[in-house]
Amino acid sequence: MTFIHKLSEAWRTSNSLLMVGLDPDPGRFPAEIREHPEAIFEFCRSIVDATAPYACGFKPQIAYFASEHAEAQLEALCAYIRGHYPALPVVLDAKRGDIGSTAIQYAREAFERYQSDAVTVNPYMGRDSVQPYLDYDGKGVIVLCRTSNPGGSDLQFMRLDNGTPLYLHVAEMVADQWNANGQCALVVGATYPDEIAQVRQRVGDMPLLIPGIGAQGGDIEATVRAGRTQAGTGMMINSSRAILYASAAGDWREAAAQAARTTRDAINRTRASASKC
Amino acid sequence: MTFIHKLSEAWRTSNSLLMVGLDPDPGRFPAEIREHPEAIFEFCRSIVDATAPYACGFKPQIAYFASEHAEAQLEALCAYIRGHYPALPVVLDAKRGDIGSTAIQYAREAFERYQSDAVTVNPYMGRDSVQPYLDYDGKGVIVLCRTSNPGGSDLQFMRLDNGTPLYLHVAEMVADQWNANGQCALVVGATYPDEIAQVRQRVGDMPLLIPGIGAQGGDIEATVRAGRTQAGTGMMINSSRAILYASAAGDWREAAAQAARTTRDAINRTRASASKC
Repeated sequence: MTFIHKLSEAWRTSNSLLMVGLDPDPGRFPAEIREHPEAIFEFCRSIVDATAPYACGFKPQIAYFASEHAEAQLEALCAYIRGHYPALPVVLDAKRGDIGSTAIQYAREAFERYQSDAVTVNPYMGRDSVQPYLDYDGKGVIVLCRTSNPGGSDLQFMRLDNGTPLYLHVAEMVADQWNANGQCALVVGATYPDEIAQVRQRVGDMPLLIPGIGAQGGDIEATVRAGRTQAGTGMMINSSRAILYASAAGDWREAAAQAARTTRDAINRTRASASKC
Repeated sequence: MTFIHKLSEAWRTSNSLLMVGLDPDPGRFPAEIREHPEAIFEFCRSIVDATAPYACGFKPQIAYFASEHAEAQLEALCAYIRGHYPALPVVLDAKRGDIGSTAIQYAREAFERYQSDAVTVNPYMGRDSVQPYLDYDGKGVIVLCRTSNPGGSDLQFMRLDNGTPLYLHVAEMVADQWNANGQCALVVGATYPDEIAQVRQRVGDMPLLIPGIGAQGGDIEATVRAGRTQAGTGMMINSSRAILYASAAGDWREAAAQAARTTRDAINRTRASASKC
């Protein structure tokens, strides 16, 4: 099953557009788990179990594992999700970007070592830097377009000589050229709902990965109104820290589940009301 | 000692602008080393020993280690270079780019885990995505500007509404804004000597990391003429595959040394004649 098909099925069967981001920061772990020899895996596994009923997928952020020498725990985590929640896609958030011969190695890392369903990539080096990921049949390739951080504007909002801002040029290039086999999606931050709408207008039903709600302050209602497709889906709305660290006390699993459920429900309320407009 | 100072000293004492790229591909290793339990480390260590007399530094490409589960061997390799060739800087080629909280983890990976002197980064997400690397005093931050691959033109050559191509806007932004503490350098591919000259004109003596000679076909003479500073330095001219895989027979160490020496000498011949012009 392709990433896009698996994602569409997950949207439908879980009735959720919530992607749970796995950014494990040991300094913020509950005391009971800190001394565990595989604390990162244990923490993430518990979060996965607690939030799976409310999620359309999981997005481990590889930097948090790499800085802690925890690649083996990331492998175990990806295998755990595949084994226990085979209907939920795993997006490896790596934002890789390099020339073809090196990109081949990064694609092996994402799709063979970690066996993720999709990977995030950076468009700055152009089409041939993304091709090695596209060469994996059915795998998802999620291209950075408009990012949720303040500095995102430094380059992405520059206007080209035809008046188009760079991020929209990226959206059009991916939709018109890179998506020949229907494997692509785009990252568009929730902090800029008007720009989500601009992107949606240009890319048809292409899925959007939307970070920036929760800890980063993006508005759920504005995000859903801007990004939904005709079918009321089309988005992986990511929340990481607001779920992972909802509580540092003994109730951290329940608090994470509650935060995920609340976020999913807030998304769904706007989805429903937006459909009626 | 800062990265920039260490690099300047290495240019002077080694009389070389050659950066040896470490892209270990086990499928291309000499037969004698393939069965070694730490073949990647052993291969790279041998290349380092063979080429150190002709190099101004080493650039391990992390993708080649990550795809082979070889992070521990990369740690050992970086430690080996620091221990045996403390005058030669290590550039971790990772091309990272992510929001601040994640970039903090990538900066820890580069500067604490691998203890590299510098790291390559992607500018697409803007200044705040690069700040966590700059926050490490004296470490080098080498920003992608004009890359050596054909697809590099897809975005980097787009003209902004003031007529400037995007890659030159990046060069100016890094030189004028991001380089406040003199930590920055730029990646500019040898496949585009005219554009190296454009970048050099705008960034003063800022070091350029120049991939694309050797296997990628860039012209050494045109590169050196375009990129040299008044002092005849200012460049880390990278060669990887043409050195690493100069021979797959029993003479592979000597062949790598010979390829490195030949490349260094070709660079130096043009440096000398360019100085006379």
